[in-house]
Amino acid sequence: MKVRLTIAYDGTAYGGWQVQPGVMTIQEKLEETLERLTGERPKVHGSGRTDQGVHALGQVAHADLAGPMAPKAVQRALNALLPPDIRITACAPAAEDFHARRSARWKEYRYFIWNGPVLPPHLRLYRAHVARPLDVEAMRKAARHLVGRHDFAALTANPNREVESTVREVTRVDLIKKGADLTLVVRGEGFLYKMVRSIAGILIRIGEGALSPDALLAIRNSGVRTARVPTAPSKGLFLWRVGY
Amino acid sequence: MKVRLTIAYDGTAYGGWQVQPGVMTIQEKLEETLERLTGERPKVHGSGRTDQGVHALGQVAHADLAGPMAPKAVQRALNALLPPDIRITACAPAAEDFHARRSARWKEYRYFIWNGPVLPPHLRLYRAHVARPLDVEAMRKAARHLVGRHDFAALTANPNREVESTVREVTRVDLIKKGADLTLVVRGEGFLYKMVRSIAGILIRIGEGALSPDALLAIRNSGVRTARVPTAPSKGLFLWRVGY
Repeated sequence: MKVRLTIAYDGTAYGGWQVQPGVMTIQEKLEETLERLTGERPKVHGSGRTDQGVHALGQVAHADLAGPMAPKAVQRALNALLPPDIRITACAPAAEDFHARRSARWKEYRYFIWNGPVLPPHLRLYRAHVARPLDVEAMRKAARHLVGRHDFAALTANPNREVESTVREVTRVDLIKKGADLTLVVRGEGFLYKMVRSIAGILIRIGEGALSPDALLAIRNSGVRTARVPTAPSKGLFLWRVGY
Repeated sequence: MKVRLTIAYDGTAYGGWQVQPGVMTIQEKLEETLERLTGERPKVHGSGRTDQGVHALGQVAHADLAGPMAPKAVQRALNALLPPDIRITACAPAAEDFHARRSARWKEYRYFIWNGPVLPPHLRLYRAHVARPLDVEAMRKAARHLVGRHDFAALTANPNREVESTVREVTRVDLIKKGADLTLVVRGEGFLYKMVRSIAGILIRIGEGALSPDALLAIRNSGVRTARVPTAPSKGLFLWRVGY
């Protein structure tokens, strides 16, 4: 039986999504828990990796489970067995040809910045902290240079890691300001390694006045990643939603 | 120099506010940090205790500090030295006769309930979880029996702990519903031991339909704490604001 899982997690205690030796990951915790539930260890295919410390509200994965079981019962049993920092928010039957990564049409990430003098203790694991006031209008101007189909080689941590093209289409970049909470919304067909955190990093620098909004156009056109583009901390990043 | 501190904390890792042997407390962490800062260990007087696992957004305390130091500098230095789960949100000079507990005119607590099937991982330490839909109107009806000057002996964990009267004046009890978030707001001149968590516990039972709204009047009038009144989990409770 093939199921589609929607998963929310607090990435703080995990070494990211993907199974790797020496550290517990979200994928491994899910596979281990499904094995406890069904007696067989399935492979859980996510829509994509998230790095160490990155969170998710709407990660999507599929898995082939041994034996028949109502999806609602799978969800309840998983939530009873999983630690409270990983929750299954939906579980539905999936079509035979559904693939969490290959079927995805778009992804939305949200990057959360606390732009105020003191980071509230209850948000400390879910916000990047920028104490000095950011120029949000400058950040919005700069963000326009990111929308569209572009080569994002200058805004990924390690372009060589990707064998294929570094061209991606970004369909939406918004900055939502609500009190001290400043939220960067980025949506696109797909993202390169550390691309959203690089976008957050350079937009914060522009908001601080260290660079002009148009500097981002020059950086993007350069095609080369340099130290001018910082990678913003992982704890501010949420994989928000995947569209199919 | 006498200062007034406003303090936000995540109570998860602490044995409550008050200094006690064998466990780190918020008060001890503050006194220890002020000693590192000033070379002398002051006593930090809070507006009141909070129990193990209870949080605060606006706890208030006063302390006499050795040597002259600008309050803003004290705040910055404390936030640099304290762990990120304790933050000083304000620091101001205090009048000679200011006393965080004795000068307090009222306190507001907020109790946060997540009333939905799945508790989001990022809120798991800051919400009580009630999966089945609560009857908020029944809870509101019951809450009216709490407003006013009453004997709250039936709604405190251990009335004998208090030498004085168990009569308190509650000036406000509200339930705010916003999606799955249900927030109980309780304001009053002062509260007995575990009184707010007892109020939250009995209101949840009434919302579940286990008791009628008017049962709360009978319970309050009985003057005796029984097992009918559960103590709601500490993680949902925040000391929200203290009025002077």
